[in-house]
Amino acid sequence: MVRTAASAQKISTSNDTATNDRLKIELARAAEAVSLRLDQLLPVVSGPEGRVVEAMRYASLNGGKRLRPFLTIANARLFDVPEQQALNAAAAIEMIHCYSLVHDDLPAMDDSDLRRGRPTAHKAFDEAVAILAGDGLLTEAFAVLSDPATHPDPAVRVALVSGLAAASGAAGMVGGQMIDMSPDRADLDLDGIKRLQALKTGALICFSCEAGAILGRANREEQAAVRSYAQDLGLAFQIVDDLLDAESSPEVLGKPTGQDEALGKATFVALLGMEGARREAADLATRAASRLDIFGEKADLLCATARFVVNRRS
Amino acid sequence: MVRTAASAQKISTSNDTATNDRLKIELARAAEAVSLRLDQLLPVVSGPEGRVVEAMRYASLNGGKRLRPFLTIANARLFDVPEQQALNAAAAIEMIHCYSLVHDDLPAMDDSDLRRGRPTAHKAFDEAVAILAGDGLLTEAFAVLSDPATHPDPAVRVALVSGLAAASGAAGMVGGQMIDMSPDRADLDLDGIKRLQALKTGALICFSCEAGAILGRANREEQAAVRSYAQDLGLAFQIVDDLLDAESSPEVLGKPTGQDEALGKATFVALLGMEGARREAADLATRAASRLDIFGEKADLLCATARFVVNRRS
Repeated sequence: MVRTAASAQKISTSNDTATNDRLKIELARAAEAVSLRLDQLLPVVSGPEGRVVEAMRYASLNGGKRLRPFLTIANARLFDVPEQQALNAAAAIEMIHCYSLVHDDLPAMDDSDLRRGRPTAHKAFDEAVAILAGDGLLTEAFAVLSDPATHPDPAVRVALVSGLAAASGAAGMVGGQMIDMSPDRADLDLDGIKRLQALKTGALICFSCEAGAILGRANREEQAAVRSYAQDLGLAFQIVDDLLDAESSPEVLGKPTGQDEALGKATFVALLGMEGARREAADLATRAASRLDIFGEKADLLCATARFVVNRRS
Repeated sequence: MVRTAASAQKISTSNDTATNDRLKIELARAAEAVSLRLDQLLPVVSGPEGRVVEAMRYASLNGGKRLRPFLTIANARLFDVPEQQALNAAAAIEMIHCYSLVHDDLPAMDDSDLRRGRPTAHKAFDEAVAILAGDGLLTEAFAVLSDPATHPDPAVRVALVSGLAAASGAAGMVGGQMIDMSPDRADLDLDGIKRLQALKTGALICFSCEAGAILGRANREEQAAVRSYAQDLGLAFQIVDDLLDAESSPEVLGKPTGQDEALGKATFVALLGMEGARREAADLATRAASRLDIFGEKADLLCATARFVVNRRS
């Protein structure tokens, strides 16, 4: 409680504006760096198989917010990890995120035509190529993590592989997407929605932060702090996603809005109301920041990130 | 050349029948062991996400031939690898194989209703669940390889991850499937068909063998021998697949036949003729066996496997 109060205070100090400005610069820098790294890791290929690589590039080199890569890079910085190592892990995590978007957008799943303001992969290519491109990105993520360039110690690399697989598989993201499509989806209560979020988006956001700690050989206390921060942040992120779906427009988001309500889906907004959801997200951001107290000023950027996630407009 | 001749002789000695009988027993034993291991690695899950796990189990616990797992186990035995380690790697490889079948069977890809004599995953469940189940199996394979139960040394585990990712991704299986679906597919020449095979099925068959050598910390010469064997075997396997598609029946194969000709696809049979294809497959099997001369009698089972692959009827 004391920590939470202390951090709540920290969150509203006069340094906020300077830190927020720095955050915007750092977010843009990370987005550019990870796009460049993805471009290098997914080089254009000639021959008839080149088309799947083209689709993998289309789906990943597209100006996403790159929040997950940023989280990896920013958490790795807590432990003075060389940026090239963090960037490799960040690129692998973004490949997983992008593959999940490609597959979720498919006609048999969410049937979305628009993603980040552009046609979805199966619209720009075709369904078969989109399925394969997703498979390719998913596989390549593990190739990147197992590469010595990601970390010289094989024990660190294999810990990254293990963590990413756990976050992405049936006990993580894939399981979450299954819940999201299940017939019981509409009637989930608050605990059910939280569990859905924890699997579908939370697990990968959590691993994005943990990857930095793994690369930095964080001790147990530091790992626990990073994980707690990530869990609070991930939940806040999802609540704001629900708010944006209810409030924003396709022009601003680059994807359809009002979907949840139209489908009668139980969401944080439906269960907590707009005001309740906004308050819950703000409280979570404050608590997320407090989780990093042990890192002192080194965590300023991540504290600002928690605020940013709650205040974002897209 | 001397080696090839020596092995050709070995292939037709009077020990053949005994070795073939042993092979049948060992194939059945490996199939049972890997099914049991997959059953353990993919436990039933309750809750709404249980359905994707159910589909993952449906797609992998279905009485396939388990050739790839057998190859891993038999190659691991060359290096006296503990069977539990080999079984874990074998199960991971079979997960990849099964995921690729689930995705290849989808309406947007090969649109197959029948697989191993049963409805394909998207028929038994639905398309969305089948896509997710494939994603889940693909991801779980890397979870298994990164588990300390697969090998105590993280360097060995990460080498397995790296090898599997390379064999399965855009420069391997995914790339091969892309070529198979490309507009140029019908007009491939013999080199083109060989390259398609090397990527689509060869890379994973090759890694199935190499995984045994990686687990066994094989030296460079041994690794090269295993790889050469696997490449010849993989090509022979694909040629026989083409022959079976041309000659066999859905009742025997448990999947549709005559597809290649109906689609006007260039195949080994179309390019070499039935007789030419049969001779090429037999020659490759003989050469595959000769590659393992350095292992002496320890390789008898793998030599018999090369014969078996060429003589199989399904």
